[in-house]
Amino acid sequence: MKLKEIGEFGFINRFAHRFDPLINSKDTGIGDDCALLSINDKEYHLVSTDLLIEDVHFLKDEISPEELGHKSLAVNLSDIAAMGGKPLYSFLSIAIPKSTELEYLDRFMEGYHKLSEQYNTPLMGGDTTSSDDKLIINVTIIGSSTKQDARLRSMAKTGDVICVTGPLGNSAGGLKILLDKLSLNTEKKKLIKRHHTPEPRINEGLWLAKQNGIHAMMDISDGIASDLKHILKASEKGATIYLENIPTSQTLKHVSSEEKWDIDTLSTSGGEDYELLITINSEDAKTIIEEFEYEFKTSLYPIGIINDNKNEINWTKEGKEIRLEKRGFNHFKQ
Amino acid sequence: MKLKEIGEFGFINRFAHRFDPLINSKDTGIGDDCALLSINDKEYHLVSTDLLIEDVHFLKDEISPEELGHKSLAVNLSDIAAMGGKPLYSFLSIAIPKSTELEYLDRFMEGYHKLSEQYNTPLMGGDTTSSDDKLIINVTIIGSSTKQDARLRSMAKTGDVICVTGPLGNSAGGLKILLDKLSLNTEKKKLIKRHHTPEPRINEGLWLAKQNGIHAMMDISDGIASDLKHILKASEKGATIYLENIPTSQTLKHVSSEEKWDIDTLSTSGGEDYELLITINSEDAKTIIEEFEYEFKTSLYPIGIINDNKNEINWTKEGKEIRLEKRGFNHFKQ
Repeated sequence: MKLKEIGEFGFINRFAHRFDPLINSKDTGIGDDCALLSINDKEYHLVSTDLLIEDVHFLKDEISPEELGHKSLAVNLSDIAAMGGKPLYSFLSIAIPKSTELEYLDRFMEGYHKLSEQYNTPLMGGDTTSSDDKLIINVTIIGSSTKQDARLRSMAKTGDVICVTGPLGNSAGGLKILLDKLSLNTEKKKLIKRHHTPEPRINEGLWLAKQNGIHAMMDISDGIASDLKHILKASEKGATIYLENIPTSQTLKHVSSEEKWDIDTLSTSGGEDYELLITINSEDAKTIIEEFEYEFKTSLYPIGIINDNKNEINWTKEGKEIRLEKRGFNHFKQ
Repeated sequence: MKLKEIGEFGFINRFAHRFDPLINSKDTGIGDDCALLSINDKEYHLVSTDLLIEDVHFLKDEISPEELGHKSLAVNLSDIAAMGGKPLYSFLSIAIPKSTELEYLDRFMEGYHKLSEQYNTPLMGGDTTSSDDKLIINVTIIGSSTKQDARLRSMAKTGDVICVTGPLGNSAGGLKILLDKLSLNTEKKKLIKRHHTPEPRINEGLWLAKQNGIHAMMDISDGIASDLKHILKASEKGATIYLENIPTSQTLKHVSSEEKWDIDTLSTSGGEDYELLITINSEDAKTIIEEFEYEFKTSLYPIGIINDNKNEINWTKEGKEIRLEKRGFNHFKQ
């Protein structure tokens, strides 16, 4: 049997449980945005790691080196945000084709450094090596969270309001423009920019984790059609999503209408928006949504409700059930 | 300018200092085998990460999947050993060519799991993705050490006796056999085995770090000609190495004599033995060497002396100075 037949998560499920007997009962391993390592009675170190490979995760000729440096760190910071944590340290492994110009690498580090500075997260170590032809980047991030504030995928409760922190599908739109080699205009460039320089929702995650009414939390890296399933599985719940409530940008709406794209597919199954997906206790939802808007001058968008239909997502549009074709982003099934 | 002109360490030096202002004074970043992250007044988390790439770091047809799983973790455990730390957690990023058989991956995880069990170090997370053609592995390891016991590269003192924990050059011999496609016999297979399944010196590192007389410590990944330079640079010292004292195995001696290899080059400039390189306060050296032998039933080999000749290694053989041609292993200068 080939790996592509069972996919990324099928593979992980084959071995993850074998490490359980080695794990201290105060720690949590595979299965959330970060591992939770207990460092004392009150705090966790949060750890996550992401691998980016040329031509699989980025097109070197399309993304500028500064943007690539930014994105390599941003996608990891987003995993810390997803737990409601504070980023502390990063580690960068990079395999570099021998012919690479030093100027390219300096500019990559420029983008990486700028975002490190923004979140006061120093690069503390790594590995540098050569590669035959592809640029390969792995970042490991360590953050911290109080045990009280850490938010897991398993915390969703029936009746919770499902919210997202920003418009979805922009990044997928940007990627589609690149892959289809469309001619560019200002709007299309904007979408590509969203694909290349996602902003991790660190401050939003920290604020949300302080609110008692926030239950489950994760970041949207593969699209909600795929990511929400992780919350449902971990929480043993189901969900109804109202497609008409999913926020999309004016830019994506214009370009989708121009290019005849199905915007619902992009906003539900397109990855890499790195917004937060959260579930809020229904009684607290109104207040939290209002206070979030006051705090961040952007909206928290309610898009659905958690229910008891285990592992199932019902997609509806103006009251009618809809069948979604694409199921989110899974590298091995591309 | 191309990267290969300044090498791996030249590149790191271009950006490492830029992160210094972001680093808490209790922590230590780039420049040792691990980063040291202060988790309380008495303890550090130690962190290291290593990237292994098919055809750069291993030949997929030569190393068995179990051996590759073992080696991927072992080289990281060795970085924890190098600080005198105890391994706690590992994280595995793996990019897998789409055509890979599941059986191959199961066997890889088998080797990884077995070594994890041996050192009670659970796999706590990671990233799984596809790659075009090459298998790519990045492991991040987290360990711990008391602040009192952590041993740095910068701790060498003038007069210290330089020791290694085992014979050098076996791994380089094994690699040479593979690259030169020599026909195999039992001895050659033994050397290849040393190249494919290094044993991290965790228990030895922990024991050594408890001895007051132990000053600097690191692991030998690139060969002492290169690795010792890191200790000398960090400690602002020099060294004299007695080539006739460098331990080599009977197997390597036989094969070197048969194949007309220069055994001094292999034992000083060949990488990946993953023995520990340590410097011991001269007055304590005799006792520590004896007690180490009693404790581990293997020897601690004195190979030289630390002196004040900044950054310089004098290589001598039976009293005469020798000029070494090769200078250790540096990926970009291969």
